[in-house]
Amino acid sequence: MSERSGKDIWRWEAGQPPVRGRDSVAAEEPLEIRIDGRPVSVTMRTPGCDRELAVGFLLSEGLIVRSDDVVAVEPALHREDCNVVNVRLAPAVRVDFDQLTRHVFASSSCGLCGKATIEAVHRQFPALDTDVVVNAVQLQALPAQLRAAQPTFDATGGLHAAAIFDLGGAPLVVREDIGRHNAVDKVLGYGLLNGLLPFDRHILMVSGRASFEILQKALAGRVPIIAAVSAPSTLAVEFAERSRQTLVAFLRESRMNVYAGRERIAFD
Amino acid sequence: MSERSGKDIWRWEAGQPPVRGRDSVAAEEPLEIRIDGRPVSVTMRTPGCDRELAVGFLLSEGLIVRSDDVVAVEPALHREDCNVVNVRLAPAVRVDFDQLTRHVFASSSCGLCGKATIEAVHRQFPALDTDVVVNAVQLQALPAQLRAAQPTFDATGGLHAAAIFDLGGAPLVVREDIGRHNAVDKVLGYGLLNGLLPFDRHILMVSGRASFEILQKALAGRVPIIAAVSAPSTLAVEFAERSRQTLVAFLRESRMNVYAGRERIAFD
Repeated sequence: MSERSGKDIWRWEAGQPPVRGRDSVAAEEPLEIRIDGRPVSVTMRTPGCDRELAVGFLLSEGLIVRSDDVVAVEPALHREDCNVVNVRLAPAVRVDFDQLTRHVFASSSCGLCGKATIEAVHRQFPALDTDVVVNAVQLQALPAQLRAAQPTFDATGGLHAAAIFDLGGAPLVVREDIGRHNAVDKVLGYGLLNGLLPFDRHILMVSGRASFEILQKALAGRVPIIAAVSAPSTLAVEFAERSRQTLVAFLRESRMNVYAGRERIAFD
Repeated sequence: MSERSGKDIWRWEAGQPPVRGRDSVAAEEPLEIRIDGRPVSVTMRTPGCDRELAVGFLLSEGLIVRSDDVVAVEPALHREDCNVVNVRLAPAVRVDFDQLTRHVFASSSCGLCGKATIEAVHRQFPALDTDVVVNAVQLQALPAQLRAAQPTFDATGGLHAAAIFDLGGAPLVVREDIGRHNAVDKVLGYGLLNGLLPFDRHILMVSGRASFEILQKALAGRVPIIAAVSAPSTLAVEFAERSRQTLVAFLRESRMNVYAGRERIAFD
């Protein structure tokens, strides 16, 4: 496993036809952390330095304090690439599992690889099958609209935003939050409370990056087109492909990269 | 509660003495989400639109599907500012609590307010009591060093970084990850596995923003000085103050804002 992976994309600049290209994307994969064989956390992370991540997490949670507390940190399935790390603790270390603040996914298959994670989500939320189309010119206008609707970001520089637009580029709702996932939950919650779901003829736009979690939430709201100001992760791209979602990232006024579902975008 | 809050800071620009000022900081507070009185999640969020956040979260988790599933969304303690939202579901909705992917904090006091959250952390990790000092000139040099050590960010634009520096500004370890909290866990784990903890004469530098979670992890590693390229949250500032940590944000080559623990920085 690597910290990044090449993806086939469509690259578009204003005034020119889109061209096939290749982009280097930051890797995102689940990691299951176990203590003496017992799963305690699944976190989405970039592969690499997994032993450090596992013991650093246990330190942050207050479960271990010093290097003597750890006897060994090893791949749980005797394979380096298995996305499961087992931390063996010294017998004197007593773990209060109830004090853990992080979640453990119900399905332990989530810890194994991105593919299993995507399949677990699809058992809850099936892939999309909509044939909506948006014009590239309409997408270009979204970042400026998102910024214009961010009063708190302007004051603090500290907030993410998420917005739902219709296919004509008109904003339905914009929400800000220190957590990008919260901002997405807020726009979906607005839709549910106002009887506007499913958002199956809409665009979800987020400030910053597009991770697996953002794409998963969009699928829960049945959103076919997701646009991000900044970079996507590998798992976000793979999730979008398999969910038949359109994923646009690095969306700016004069350019964008299309990572999945290019057929929903009309470049005139 | 508001989406932002004013904080007293020290503002510094290269070549000038630091001046007292006021900064508008994005609000971060815990929110406990309950279903029919049962806590199902505590999330750090920016106050506002909490009803939307609660039902959007339940939608993303696959627990509800349509507006008819929700009978009412109400403050659980009959106060608008209590940071606890209760979602009453229609009798026909059957919730499988085991399928929830998010965590519930062990201490339900965490859902009540930032102060209770900070006190819960301090029961595990006491406040610091170190009198180290770093020169402002040394801090200025850190962002460039962090960027220089980020090969994957340069290729993908998609990764956060965390680094530990000594008080002379020399880097001990730099790690990248799609999750900022993971990058911090990795540098702490590096310290633990190599017998370098506590990092009590060190600086933790992070790309992007400084949230409560980053400050909490730094305290677990006993780091007295935390520096961020971008904005802090209110709860990060309050946590740093009460933990006697120094928090520097918007750290650039020619300027910085000091939000807490100014006495550890020498401005010559």
